[in-house]
Amino acid sequence: MLYNISVSDMNLGDEIEGFFVLTSASRRTTAAGKTYLTGTLSDRSGSLEMVAWDYSGEIGPEDNGKVVKVRGRVSEYRSDRQFSAQRIRLADRKDEYRPEDLVPAAPIDRDAQLREIDTLIDSLHDEDYRHLAAEALRRHRESFSLIPAAKSVHHGFLGGLLMHTADMLHIADFLSGQYAEVINRDLLLCGTLLHDMAKAREFSLSPLGLAVDYSLEGQLLGHTVMGAQETAALAEELNLPKEKSVLLQHMILSHHGEPEFGAAVRPMCAEAELLHLIDMIDSRMEIYAETFTTLPSGSFSGKIFALDRKIYRPAESEKHPE
Amino acid sequence: MLYNISVSDMNLGDEIEGFFVLTSASRRTTAAGKTYLTGTLSDRSGSLEMVAWDYSGEIGPEDNGKVVKVRGRVSEYRSDRQFSAQRIRLADRKDEYRPEDLVPAAPIDRDAQLREIDTLIDSLHDEDYRHLAAEALRRHRESFSLIPAAKSVHHGFLGGLLMHTADMLHIADFLSGQYAEVINRDLLLCGTLLHDMAKAREFSLSPLGLAVDYSLEGQLLGHTVMGAQETAALAEELNLPKEKSVLLQHMILSHHGEPEFGAAVRPMCAEAELLHLIDMIDSRMEIYAETFTTLPSGSFSGKIFALDRKIYRPAESEKHPE
Amino acid sequence: MLYNISVSDMNLGDEIEGFFVLTSASRRTTAAGKTYLTGTLSDRSGSLEMVAWDYSGEIGPEDNGKVVKVRGRVSEYRSDRQFSAQRIRLADRKDEYRPEDLVPAAPIDRDAQLREIDTLIDSLHDEDYRHLAAEALRRHRESFSLIPAAKSVHHGFLGGLLMHTADMLHIADFLSGQYAEVINRDLLLCGTLLHDMAKAREFSLSPLGLAVDYSLEGQLLGHTVMGAQETAALAEELNLPKEKSVLLQHMILSHHGEPEFGAAVRPMCAEAELLHLIDMIDSRMEIYAETFTTLPSGSFSGKIFALDRKIYRPAESEKHPE
Amino acid sequence: MLYNISVSDMNLGDEIEGFFVLTSASRRTTAAGKTYLTGTLSDRSGSLEMVAWDYSGEIGPEDNGKVVKVRGRVSEYRSDRQFSAQRIRLADRKDEYRPEDLVPAAPIDRDAQLREIDTLIDSLHDEDYRHLAAEALRRHRESFSLIPAAKSVHHGFLGGLLMHTADMLHIADFLSGQYAEVINRDLLLCGTLLHDMAKAREFSLSPLGLAVDYSLEGQLLGHTVMGAQETAALAEELNLPKEKSVLLQHMILSHHGEPEFGAAVRPMCAEAELLHLIDMIDSRMEIYAETFTTLPSGSFSGKIFALDRKIYRPAESEKHPE
Amino acid sequence: MLYNISVSDMNLGDEIEGFFVLTSASRRTTAAGKTYLTGTLSDRSGSLEMVAWDYSGEIGPEDNGKVVKVRGRVSEYRSDRQFSAQRIRLADRKDEYRPEDLVPAAPIDRDAQLREIDTLIDSLHDEDYRHLAAEALRRHRESFSLIPAAKSVHHGFLGGLLMHTADMLHIADFLSGQYAEVINRDLLLCGTLLHDMAKAREFSLSPLGLAVDYSLEGQLLGHTVMGAQETAALAEELNLPKEKSVLLQHMILSHHGEPEFGAAVRPMCAEAELLHLIDMIDSRMEIYAETFTTLPSGSFSGKIFALDRKIYRPAESEKHPE
Amino acid sequence: MLYNISVSDMNLGDEIEGFFVLTSASRRTTAAGKTYLTGTLSDRSGSLEMVAWDYSGEIGPEDNGKVVKVRGRVSEYRSDRQFSAQRIRLADRKDEYRPEDLVPAAPIDRDAQLREIDTLIDSLHDEDYRHLAAEALRRHRESFSLIPAAKSVHHGFLGGLLMHTADMLHIADFLSGQYAEVINRDLLLCGTLLHDMAKAREFSLSPLGLAVDYSLEGQLLGHTVMGAQETAALAEELNLPKEKSVLLQHMILSHHGEPEFGAAVRPMCAEAELLHLIDMIDSRMEIYAETFTTLPSGSFSGKIFALDRKIYRPAESEKHPE
Repeated sequence: MLYNISVSDMNLGDEIEGFFVLTSASRRTTAAGKTYLTGTLSDRSGSLEMVAWDYSGEIGPEDNGKVVKVRGRVSEYRSDRQFSAQRIRLADRKDEYRPEDLVPAAPIDRDAQLREIDTLIDSLHDEDYRHLAAEALRRHRESFSLIPAAKSVHHGFLGGLLMHTADMLHIADFLSGQYAEVINRDLLLCGTLLHDMAKAREFSLSPLGLAVDYSLEGQLLGHTVMGAQETAALAEELNLPKEKSVLLQHMILSHHGEPEFGAAVRPMCAEAELLHLIDMIDSRMEIYAETFTTLPSGSFSGKIFALDRKIYRPAESEKHPE
Repeated sequence: MLYNISVSDMNLGDEIEGFFVLTSASRRTTAAGKTYLTGTLSDRSGSLEMVAWDYSGEIGPEDNGKVVKVRGRVSEYRSDRQFSAQRIRLADRKDEYRPEDLVPAAPIDRDAQLREIDTLIDSLHDEDYRHLAAEALRRHRESFSLIPAAKSVHHGFLGGLLMHTADMLHIADFLSGQYAEVINRDLLLCGTLLHDMAKAREFSLSPLGLAVDYSLEGQLLGHTVMGAQETAALAEELNLPKEKSVLLQHMILSHHGEPEFGAAVRPMCAEAELLHLIDMIDSRMEIYAETFTTLPSGSFSGKIFALDRKIYRPAESEKHPE
Repeated sequence: MLYNISVSDMNLGDEIEGFFVLTSASRRTTAAGKTYLTGTLSDRSGSLEMVAWDYSGEIGPEDNGKVVKVRGRVSEYRSDRQFSAQRIRLADRKDEYRPEDLVPAAPIDRDAQLREIDTLIDSLHDEDYRHLAAEALRRHRESFSLIPAAKSVHHGFLGGLLMHTADMLHIADFLSGQYAEVINRDLLLCGTLLHDMAKAREFSLSPLGLAVDYSLEGQLLGHTVMGAQETAALAEELNLPKEKSVLLQHMILSHHGEPEFGAAVRPMCAEAELLHLIDMIDSRMEIYAETFTTLPSGSFSGKIFALDRKIYRPAESEKHPE
Repeated sequence: MLYNISVSDMNLGDEIEGFFVLTSASRRTTAAGKTYLTGTLSDRSGSLEMVAWDYSGEIGPEDNGKVVKVRGRVSEYRSDRQFSAQRIRLADRKDEYRPEDLVPAAPIDRDAQLREIDTLIDSLHDEDYRHLAAEALRRHRESFSLIPAAKSVHHGFLGGLLMHTADMLHIADFLSGQYAEVINRDLLLCGTLLHDMAKAREFSLSPLGLAVDYSLEGQLLGHTVMGAQETAALAEELNLPKEKSVLLQHMILSHHGEPEFGAAVRPMCAEAELLHLIDMIDSRMEIYAETFTTLPSGSFSGKIFALDRKIYRPAESEKHPE
Repeated sequence: MLYNISVSDMNLGDEIEGFFVLTSASRRTTAAGKTYLTGTLSDRSGSLEMVAWDYSGEIGPEDNGKVVKVRGRVSEYRSDRQFSAQRIRLADRKDEYRPEDLVPAAPIDRDAQLREIDTLIDSLHDEDYRHLAAEALRRHRESFSLIPAAKSVHHGFLGGLLMHTADMLHIADFLSGQYAEVINRDLLLCGTLLHDMAKAREFSLSPLGLAVDYSLEGQLLGHTVMGAQETAALAEELNLPKEKSVLLQHMILSHHGEPEFGAAVRPMCAEAELLHLIDMIDSRMEIYAETFTTLPSGSFSGKIFALDRKIYRPAESEKHPE
Repeated sequence: MLYNISVSDMNLGDEIEGFFVLTSASRRTTAAGKTYLTGTLSDRSGSLEMVAWDYSGEIGPEDNGKVVKVRGRVSEYRSDRQFSAQRIRLADRKDEYRPEDLVPAAPIDRDAQLREIDTLIDSLHDEDYRHLAAEALRRHRESFSLIPAAKSVHHGFLGGLLMHTADMLHIADFLSGQYAEVINRDLLLCGTLLHDMAKAREFSLSPLGLAVDYSLEGQLLGHTVMGAQETAALAEELNLPKEKSVLLQHMILSHHGEPEFGAAVRPMCAEAELLHLIDMIDSRMEIYAETFTTLPSGSFSGKIFALDRKIYRPAESEKHPE
């Protein structure tokens, strides 16, 4: 029996006991009339399907996102690994497990990243954009540094929004220099900081901080409209000139580029155009990075839903030794 | 010389003097170096192109939407009628003309229509929707009853928004009865009243009330986002429950149906779905009605931009004498 | 053992005996070489999957649409209920069951609806349209009042075509008044009555009247082309003027709106345009109504195929108590 | 002064007198108030724009498609040649001109082509298809051999439909041999003969036989639906089995391939699939052939509307001397 | 026990021993922890799924495309036949089986077809095209006559590329005569011969010659770009004039017609246009022919992926007895 | 009379003599039979339309791209300035004008940029990519540093390709650091350098170095296919491993992103994905920059063809004074 082994280290045939996050839980009945439980177990290293045969306890869909203690064996089902649980129960206060082991988190130092963003905000010359950026961050500092940037278990992790925004700000700062003729750095950086901030309201968050679903307003309004709305209110509160407020709202509303991809309007100023392309770069590179964690060099992935095609990881990608 | 004849009554060769609205004014110079003025003259009956040869006065693009006094002759240019002005000057206070003759207006009794809408609002059972509808109308009563529903001279006229909204409310009321199982009448009527109300901010209005252009925020944000934003603020002010506010915003954001036609989100509740289809019916019937004003029975129109096809007016459309 | 319980009332674990309609029947063999039978059982309240293990009798795909007597137990398979049949046989003449319990039917009084349509036809002022409408209905009265409006078990039920057409005529009558300037009521009502009448030839109907498949001509020609064809022949028989025949055919051919949705031509007259939009309204509202039968207030549906999105049923939709 | 010179032989500066077909005639007035006439003059060799300054006679749009006698000079306008008419009048009975010089006609021997088609029909083994093909041709023999295959002056000429159909039959006959396993030659040839036969009803024809416009039913129904309709009626008259009639109708309805290009249904049998591709081949090769009449070897055409791209005529296309 | 029976002759319940090609092999483990092997067995008559329960041997994905000897029983799984193997091992040199029985091959005489193509090449008048065609065929003669034209087991078989190209050359030769005015026969035939020749580099071929996957360059460059590249190099080697080389490359690059279907450029000369349409004809007729091998007359197929629709095989397709 | 004044400084009414580049030259004839010449005059500051009334000299379309000496007056035509030339002749050797005044050129120091690129190439660790990049640049150094990046007079200027590539390399270098986990810097920089290098063969260049048209192979093959072809040949010459050659070719072939925008394949490796997005950023920012040269702050542009929308230049874009 192996204890508290991480999901990515499990091998076929291992007997395992440990704590994991349960999702997609569903109570079932066999043709022979026996009840059983299916679901997904995950920790920060990955996830795998679980089945608990002959389970007639109380765990069910209402426990999605909670931590369970399981004991069982790693088998295979339709060419994927599967966890066959002999025992399963909800974790309680007396159990000793570390939440940070269970939930995938961005590989970053969150406090350092937040301080970097503070410094960038301080560097804005335009008082209006600087005040609004600082105040928006002050109000959402906690959720902004905690939540994922997307819902899916495979693309979303704690601190995902912070990491995504910080990376984009880094690029925005660089490109503001290269295209200083057409780009107002203050506007670009302020709009970049704000562009996804309403994601905190778009998701329903689990006890451990993951996005397990979309909220009602997340689905009926969307984070771009909500983000523009909150920016409009804040801009009025801080007495920003009308045009500055409208430009920031426009950047948030248009950052998906095309209506078919969720933009309420298409980008019509240089800063909105650039914000959209920086967002594309950082999302795409993230998809490649996450795909590479399981894709060997010199091989093709399966079709990637978000790209609608498969990708290739070059065999020749070794870096030169310094 | 004919005085104050209306545009639709002008014939080729007529010598005319009168007051008209000037739009699309542009100062030009001939190959021979002579300056002249071009533009469009209109009154409520229609419009025609104008040219003032050898004009070197001060009238120009900055006078678009103003009233001018002209004297000249109706000629033809590239198979369309054209007005050749011998004299043209801006109208001033002493001039005697009636604004209501110059600007096309909806063929309705505006006060009666407003009262009908008041009565419909009073008939809402849900207090929240009733209060919000009444308050929104109270705040925008004047612009709501005055402005056109669209920018184009040919599809937009004074009172256009009021006429469009009243016609849609009439249909919404009827269909609420037919589909009472799925439609919440209070929500549908409230959303219908609000759906285009932000058009007042989307346009730049001329002195006489016509939409001569789009405003900055009209172009960068759009009337659906602005309408949802104002509704959110008003709902908060009136303490509406969160879901009611979200549903109203959703209806406004989705009433164009598909993202490619300007919907920030696609309709996801029955009332939003129906609002979109009622809007389609009333806009399309209006296009047919306006096209019929110049299209003889038994003939085809040219290609209509908004429909991307031509239409046919049946020869057999005579109504039965009662 | 429960007798003749309806599908919607079955609970997990119930032991049941009764009569149901069999569809999608298929003979199978297990890996161990044992034969079994799968299929779907339905009555007017709903349907569920069935499996009869160790069945080696004669029932098979050729019995789709027939009534069977089954005895078995309600179990669960992949999170859906499933009926495990211990016994199954075709019903015969001596069996006592009521067909009206087995086949879903429109919640309407068919005779009353037919009489309403007769009255509407009598109200047409134009003799040509009136005669053609009356004669078309006389010829198809039985199938018109019996068949579903669509093939799918979930969207189609006995009397579906009658209910759909009557609802559309109701709206068409109302809108003819609102848009009397552009709409010829006689043409609109006549075209609305005829628009789906060829569906009787588009389907292959089961013994109990349901659409179990499309006919050869239904697939190779389609109901719009067949409907226009029959209308052309009838119009010639009744000596209608050429243009009236062409207009009716055009309305039938174009009522799906766009070529990609099955329109042979796009609508080019006001009545065809309106017919298309009324059809959209009634189909969409029906989809919401049918989805609401199983969707609780305050929740989202799964993705609905016909709409290509999910829908939300508001929590606040309670009607005001009078 | 040059007499009866053909359009393609006119050079800039030529003084000319002769007979031509007038189309697109329009009465105009100059800014200075002088009336004039514009239009297009054509003979079988080509066409050019015409203007008759200071013309105040009675010729106008109602004379489109008629023959006129003109006298004038070939000048240039916006880089195209233009005919400046000093005199213009309608031709009358006493005038001596040959219609065959004025209207472009297919470079074929119409009688020989018709006889070839007769022979092909005789070769059909299936009596039903043979009888229907023969009877359809008998009824439309005259219009079938006379009319163009399309409306545009540049793609349509007398005998165009006959030439297009005969060329397609030739290919269909060849491919029936190559794909004898999947293709029923009798069905393919019969469907090919019928596929465009309703074009005679789709056009409004000029006195000289050209398609000057579309007819009412041509626009509201289209030639595919009308062709299928007539075929259905004829098949019933000749007692064809139901499936044969449905297959022929299907081929006619689907021969444009995709709904967006005018197909009422997409091809679903091998013969319909092949008919569509043969139609593509013959139309496309015709477009190249007609473009080559004015395009020098080794150069690119302008953008061709029907192809949505430009084409290249190779410099190396000289045929080997035998 | 039946020996060496072909896949298409297997019946449910048969006990069988014989040699087959293994593909899609995958090692699995049951919920109970037992290992087993799944895969597909095929011979030239067809294929079926295989499962070997309790298999713990060494056969796995790395053996795809190899020949295995199996012993087992034909059962059914989810309404398809399945082979339950009791024994399975790789074939070795001592085993007596005939490769030509195992791999599907085109129903043609390959040598005869190659000689026909040689004759066609000899008939080209243009020396440049004749030399290049002959040399290209000389270099690829073996792979050209061996490989399939596509990857899928159902559309690809040995000699498929040769059969496809020969059929297309046959049509190209015929149409060169019909459209001699616009088509340069030498260019068309040469381009047709070359159009798919790079498919040998696009596939990864199995030991028996089937395309089991795409190669790295097949996926990152595609056969049209590789084919154009090799043609460019060969043309330079043979000193073809620049334009001839460019035209051939253009035909290869554009033969898929539209960018969305894989054309690097759209066809811009008559020969490229025709090549594309001939390719369409031969691929489509092949799809019908292959579908007909299992589709009874008078019935519809399921949806065919490559056509995005189902097809109908007419009941009336019997050929006339000569 | 003003001498050698630049186009952007010309005012209505100015009498001017000087040297300009002539393009779009066309010989015309008035209705009255007089010949004249039209065309476009440009220098590096801009361009304007020209007309030379009563011109009967030898200048014509064959002189496009050459330098002319003109004398005339700036007038207005359809709201644009137009140059009315009284005299026009081709410049000859004795004329004293400076080519660099006539042709727009990138606002960069070309030698410095080239040296920067040399340094970047030297920094590549991978010998293969470094050698290939250096050799490709060595062979094309002159044309690479001279030619525009696009054909249009308004988007293309001398040194345009160098400026575009250098800017992209700058961004690529920066992003290689940010995404070091997924991006091979050597591959990305090498592919970026090569991506547009074949533009020199895609254009027909004027005597002064501007792209006045596309070449034959530019139109029939395109610069992406030609670029991949040359890279393949060079890689073979330098003995690069197969995969490195394929990856570079893939980046060039896919750098337009989607087939509808000219990509022969869609990007399938991280470096190709990023190259495409960097290309988007630099092209879009260039469009904004060029539009801003004539667009005042606080106003909207007209619709920009390449973006299919208009853009807004913010009023608030003033930079903070340091």
